[in-house]
Amino acid sequence: MPAVRFELHHIDAGSAARRSTFHTPHGPVDLPAFMPVGTQAAVKALTVDQVRSTGAQMILGNTYHLALRPGEEVIRDLGGLHRFMGWGGPILTDSGGFQLYSLAQNTKVTEQAAVFRSHIDGRLLELSPERAIAIQEALGSDVAMVLDHVIALPAEGDAIRDACERTIRWADRCRKAATRSDQAQFAIVQGGLNPDLRVWCAHQLADLDFPGYAVGGLSVGESPAEMYRILDAVCPPMPAHKPRYLMGVGTPQDLLHAIRRGIDLFDCVLPTRNGRNAMAFTDSGPLRLRNSIHQRDDRPLEENCPCLACRHSRAYLRHLFLADEMLGPILLTHHNLTYYQRLLVGARQAIAENRFAGFCNEHLCRWHLPVAGSL
Amino acid sequence: MPAVRFELHHIDAGSAARRSTFHTPHGPVDLPAFMPVGTQAAVKALTVDQVRSTGAQMILGNTYHLALRPGEEVIRDLGGLHRFMGWGGPILTDSGGFQLYSLAQNTKVTEQAAVFRSHIDGRLLELSPERAIAIQEALGSDVAMVLDHVIALPAEGDAIRDACERTIRWADRCRKAATRSDQAQFAIVQGGLNPDLRVWCAHQLADLDFPGYAVGGLSVGESPAEMYRILDAVCPPMPAHKPRYLMGVGTPQDLLHAIRRGIDLFDCVLPTRNGRNAMAFTDSGPLRLRNSIHQRDDRPLEENCPCLACRHSRAYLRHLFLADEMLGPILLTHHNLTYYQRLLVGARQAIAENRFAGFCNEHLCRWHLPVAGSL
Repeated sequence: MPAVRFELHHIDAGSAARRSTFHTPHGPVDLPAFMPVGTQAAVKALTVDQVRSTGAQMILGNTYHLALRPGEEVIRDLGGLHRFMGWGGPILTDSGGFQLYSLAQNTKVTEQAAVFRSHIDGRLLELSPERAIAIQEALGSDVAMVLDHVIALPAEGDAIRDACERTIRWADRCRKAATRSDQAQFAIVQGGLNPDLRVWCAHQLADLDFPGYAVGGLSVGESPAEMYRILDAVCPPMPAHKPRYLMGVGTPQDLLHAIRRGIDLFDCVLPTRNGRNAMAFTDSGPLRLRNSIHQRDDRPLEENCPCLACRHSRAYLRHLFLADEMLGPILLTHHNLTYYQRLLVGARQAIAENRFAGFCNEHLCRWHLPVAGSL
Repeated sequence: MPAVRFELHHIDAGSAARRSTFHTPHGPVDLPAFMPVGTQAAVKALTVDQVRSTGAQMILGNTYHLALRPGEEVIRDLGGLHRFMGWGGPILTDSGGFQLYSLAQNTKVTEQAAVFRSHIDGRLLELSPERAIAIQEALGSDVAMVLDHVIALPAEGDAIRDACERTIRWADRCRKAATRSDQAQFAIVQGGLNPDLRVWCAHQLADLDFPGYAVGGLSVGESPAEMYRILDAVCPPMPAHKPRYLMGVGTPQDLLHAIRRGIDLFDCVLPTRNGRNAMAFTDSGPLRLRNSIHQRDDRPLEENCPCLACRHSRAYLRHLFLADEMLGPILLTHHNLTYYQRLLVGARQAIAENRFAGFCNEHLCRWHLPVAGSL
C-alpha cells in the first residue's frame, strides 16, 4: 500500500489543466492546490485554525530550518511535525535544496553533501541526501522532497548541467535512504532555463519511478515568460499519473498559467509575505493598504470575501498598518491566503466544467494583465 | 433614561468585594471585570473574535492615540469606534490624562488644557476637558473618562494637590460638555499617595454625581503595599451604588487585592504586553517561555485551559518565540487574557458564594505570594 495516491479525475478540454485528488496519510488534497508556507512549523501570523479556515488542505514545512531549530529530534520526540504544530492535515517538507540558493553565501556543495553554516549560530549542518531524508522522516511529513541542487540563474551551462546531474544522483540516493512507508518522496526536475536539459532531467527522474514530481529552480529571478517556456517543455515528459508540483511559485497569474500547462500543486511565500507588507490580492488586482486613498474607504478589500479582514473596512486595515498593529499583518495574511484558496476553488470547478482557459483569461483581464494565447 | 446602569447583586460576607452587573448601551458587563487594552482600536495581536473568546465583555480604547491616528472624525464618519474595529460589546475610552504622565516630556498643562506634542509627527494636540469629551463623543464609546491630571510619583505635596484640584475642576467641565445621552462619564479620583487628599477628592467628585468613579494615578511606580493602602482609604468614600474602576492595574494579585477592597473594574497592558514578551500567567505563577527548561516539555501552559495556546506544548510555544514567529505573541496574548478572564469568573463566583477571602488566599498561595491579612 503506497503512502500516497494520485487520482486523476479530468483533464480540461481546452488546456492541459488537470482536476485530481492527492490522497495522503493525513487526508486528501483537492488538486490543483496551493500550500501555505509554514517554514518554521508555523504559517506566519496565523493559528492553524485560521489557516484551515482559508480553505488550505495541505501546508509546507522546511527541512533545513526545522533541523536547525528546534531540531528534528525534538519534533520527533514530541510526536512529529503534525502534532508539534497542531496541524492534522497533510504536510509536505522541502528538503533544504532551495536554501543552497537562498543562503548560498553560507553553503558549500560536494558530491557527498551540502554543508551549511547555520544562519542562526554559525554551527555547521551537513545535509547529504540521506540526512535530508532522515530529517524528514523524523519530522514525519506526508511528502518529503528529495535534496536537489538549486543554483542561481543565469549561470554557466556547465554549472547548470552539473547541478542537474547531481540532483538526479541525489534523488536516487534519497529514494534508497527511505525507511518510512507512510511518507512519499517527490523528485525535483532541475535544468535551469535550458528546455532540453529540463526534458532530459524529467525523463531520467521518471525512470526512477517516484510517486510525485516537482519543478524546482524556478522563481529565482527569471521572467514569467521564461518560466512559462520551461513549463511548456517540462510538463509533457513528467509522468501523467503522478502529481506535478511547481515549487516556490507564485503570483495568482503564475498559478493560472502553470495550471493551464498541467501543474497540480504550488507553494509560495507571496500571499503571506505580501500580506505582512500591507499588500492585498483582489479580483481587481493588488491593493496597497498604506495608500492614503484608503483613509476613509468603508468598503472591504473584496465584496463577498469570507476572510477575517473583509469584516472590516479598508480604512481600518490601513489604520492598523500605519499604527504598526500586528493585527494588520494577521488580517491581510488571512485575506491573501483566502484569496489564493478561493482562486483555486474556482480553477478546479472551471477544469471540471471544461472552461479553464476562459476562467484563466477572465481573471487575467480583471487583473489588467495580457490574456494567455493558445497553448 | 441614563446611558448606563449599575446593578449591585451582592457583597461578599468576608470582604468588601462586590458582585454586580454594569449595563451599557452595548450590553451588560459582569463585574468585577477586566478590560483588555485596545489603545489604537485593536487589542494587540488578536482579532476581535479571539478577544471575545477569552471571555472579555468590555474593552478599552484611548482618546489621545485615536485622536492623533486615525483621527476621531475618521472613526466618527465610519460609524464610530465599535463599528470601526468590529467590536460589538461595550467600550470604555480613556481620556488622555494618563498620557500626561507617560508622555510627560511632550506635554504642557495649563488650567485651560493639556497640550501634547504628538509622539508620531510632532504636531500639537490641545486636549482641554471639553475637547477630550468631544473626541470621545465622536468615538462613541459607552463610557468616556473625564480628563484628569496624572503626575509622576513621588512628587511635591503642592504639585499633587494642584493636580488633584485641577482634576476635580476638569471633571466638572467634562460633565458640562457632555451632549450624548448614550455615553456615560466616569470621574477619576486623584491625590497621589496621600490618603487624606484621596478621600477629599472622592468626596468632591461624589458630589458631582457621575455614573461611575475611577481611581487614577496609581501603578506609576509605587509599591503594591502603597497602592493597597490608597485603595483602603479611597474605596469607602466612593459611592457604593456606582461602579469603581481601578485604572491601569495590574497583576493577578493586584486584581484580587483590589476586588477585596471593593473595586469592580480593571484594565492593564500586562497580560497582552507580557504575552508578547514570552511570559505566561498560570495558576503556579508566571512561566518564561524562552527558558530552556521548556525545550522538550510536552505539557500545555495550564491543564484544562481552553485558550488557543494550550492546544500546543510548552516546547512548541518556546520554539515559536526562539524562531521569532508572530504566532508566539499571538498565542500567549490569548492565553494571558484568557487567564485573567477565568480568574475573574472564579472571583465573581466566590463573591456570590461569600468565600472571596478564601479564594483570594488560595490563589496567592498557589502563586507563592504572601496571603492577605484581614481588612
